[in-house]
Amino acid sequence: MTVRESELIDKITRALRPRRTPSLDVRLGVGDDAALFRPRAGREIILTCDWFLEGTHFLRETHPPDSVGWKCLARALSDIAAMGGVPRCFLLSLALPDTHTGRWLDEFLAGLGRASRKFSCVLAGGDTTRRREISVNVTVVGDVETGRAVTRSGASPGELIYVSGRLGDAELGLEVLRRSRGPGHRNDFAARHLYPEPRLALGRWMAEKRLASSMMDLSDGLSSDLLRLCAASGVGACLERATIPCLRTSDIARKYGLDPWKLALHGGDDYELLFTVPLRKARLLPPAFQGIPLTPIGKITKQSKLVLRDENGREQPLAAGGWDPFRKTGA
Amino acid sequence: MTVRESELIDKITRALRPRRTPSLDVRLGVGDDAALFRPRAGREIILTCDWFLEGTHFLRETHPPDSVGWKCLARALSDIAAMGGVPRCFLLSLALPDTHTGRWLDEFLAGLGRASRKFSCVLAGGDTTRRREISVNVTVVGDVETGRAVTRSGASPGELIYVSGRLGDAELGLEVLRRSRGPGHRNDFAARHLYPEPRLALGRWMAEKRLASSMMDLSDGLSSDLLRLCAASGVGACLERATIPCLRTSDIARKYGLDPWKLALHGGDDYELLFTVPLRKARLLPPAFQGIPLTPIGKITKQSKLVLRDENGREQPLAAGGWDPFRKTGA
Repeated sequence: MTVRESELIDKITRALRPRRTPSLDVRLGVGDDAALFRPRAGREIILTCDWFLEGTHFLRETHPPDSVGWKCLARALSDIAAMGGVPRCFLLSLALPDTHTGRWLDEFLAGLGRASRKFSCVLAGGDTTRRREISVNVTVVGDVETGRAVTRSGASPGELIYVSGRLGDAELGLEVLRRSRGPGHRNDFAARHLYPEPRLALGRWMAEKRLASSMMDLSDGLSSDLLRLCAASGVGACLERATIPCLRTSDIARKYGLDPWKLALHGGDDYELLFTVPLRKARLLPPAFQGIPLTPIGKITKQSKLVLRDENGREQPLAAGGWDPFRKTGA
Repeated sequence: MTVRESELIDKITRALRPRRTPSLDVRLGVGDDAALFRPRAGREIILTCDWFLEGTHFLRETHPPDSVGWKCLARALSDIAAMGGVPRCFLLSLALPDTHTGRWLDEFLAGLGRASRKFSCVLAGGDTTRRREISVNVTVVGDVETGRAVTRSGASPGELIYVSGRLGDAELGLEVLRRSRGPGHRNDFAARHLYPEPRLALGRWMAEKRLASSMMDLSDGLSSDLLRLCAASGVGACLERATIPCLRTSDIARKYGLDPWKLALHGGDDYELLFTVPLRKARLLPPAFQGIPLTPIGKITKQSKLVLRDENGREQPLAAGGWDPFRKTGA
């Protein structure tokens, strides 16, 4: 198969063309040296980029191509959600083997296009090249009202720690995929791993209402990510184990010999939001936002360490056991 | 060697810390979910990203690490130059083998840091992961006065075609590197390949003075890139072979059996600017800008084809013979 770079770019542009009138923010998109983006008055630009690499973040034989397309954008959008921002456009860097420029690419673009349309984030440009292993890098540009972005560094002692949704499902889904032969991705847990939903509406609402003092998304696992939030804020945390929203019982988890608490504490890829709320604002927080539970799971403390308290009040140090690409094994 | 992602991020941040007060544009940099960039009033944002991959764009054994660092940023900056923009900040996505997180990374960051400081483009964020092959992706954010960006699509029949600098030197430099054993990078041509200089001041000046009707940078080779400019503008071009600035005679090119014209027409990595100027504005163009020659090499034509005219007035079709990652061999 011989395909030229220009043909690939045409294919990508066609597949990702917005159904409605393209965004007015992007004045010049694919096909020039660079894209032009017109910022809106009174808003700051949010910039984030994410690797999505074969072998590291997905497996060619395990992950359906449309999941690779969906997820490479969804996980970068999750960073925009974590700042309380609105996505505007993205750049797609794609390196593919010749063998994957046909059907694989079509399905990849179908998944990416669904995410692009669903979350109103249009393709503005990118770079395409040939490579033995499939490599994707996505840069997302969003914006937020100037001064309203929620960072990791605003947590203070005494504030409540919240998470959205239920934790550990995506990690369990990955196990389902690993152990199933054939299309295991029809399983609900697998779907959480393959097609994560960035919590954009929730993040935006938290920023607009100024409810959260700090916020981040859960990508590597609660224990690792909370440590990062605490380090950025110069604080510690005490989590109440019993309150952490996870699968209390699961036939699948039991069958696989997996501990739901460990999945919730250390499992990656949930893309839920982790945020802190001052006590006086906590009563303004509903128990759920658009059907997604918002659960208090502990408190920010002065001492910069993480502690997990069990149902009997016993405290144990909580070590970061989530995903780190430079560590061979998770804890 | 076991190194954590957080240690790598610390190392990168330290190495790329600006010597002077950091840019006020970047309000939140490395260490949060995303970076915050405050756009300046009356300016549009320019966005570009570029792969820089081992095996495709550089060779681990041939290219010194500080050249990899310099060039991965310089070539993305060249896209900003081609729009007439000013660079502001960049995102660095880096995937490395464990074996390259020590001395290789230090030298890579030294080269990247030199480029970052020289061209006033600060690190705003990125993503780091482990991978067998070295993979780099750089996103650069720049800006330009609203409405002043120079695109590829503004060329009209009758306009003059110009290039900056001398073409083909970088391709010859790559040959020098390929054939030399040991540190061939001390050679001047090799330096053009290893440490290209984005023509930022020239591009900015062209946009401010509104001299160019269209502009792009030469990354894949004149024949391929001119075809892209013509396609975007819906025009053709006739080049005068004798006027193309290239090495007229070179001992090295002769020794290697390389044709300087072919190097100039199809050689990649020059990162010079290609632009078109209306006849009435051509007299405002100096023969050189800050020591870089500006040479008229032909005219834009109505018919959408590329023609090369030799010293005797004979015309030949000019086929795109530059670099295309999806084609096995150059023409």
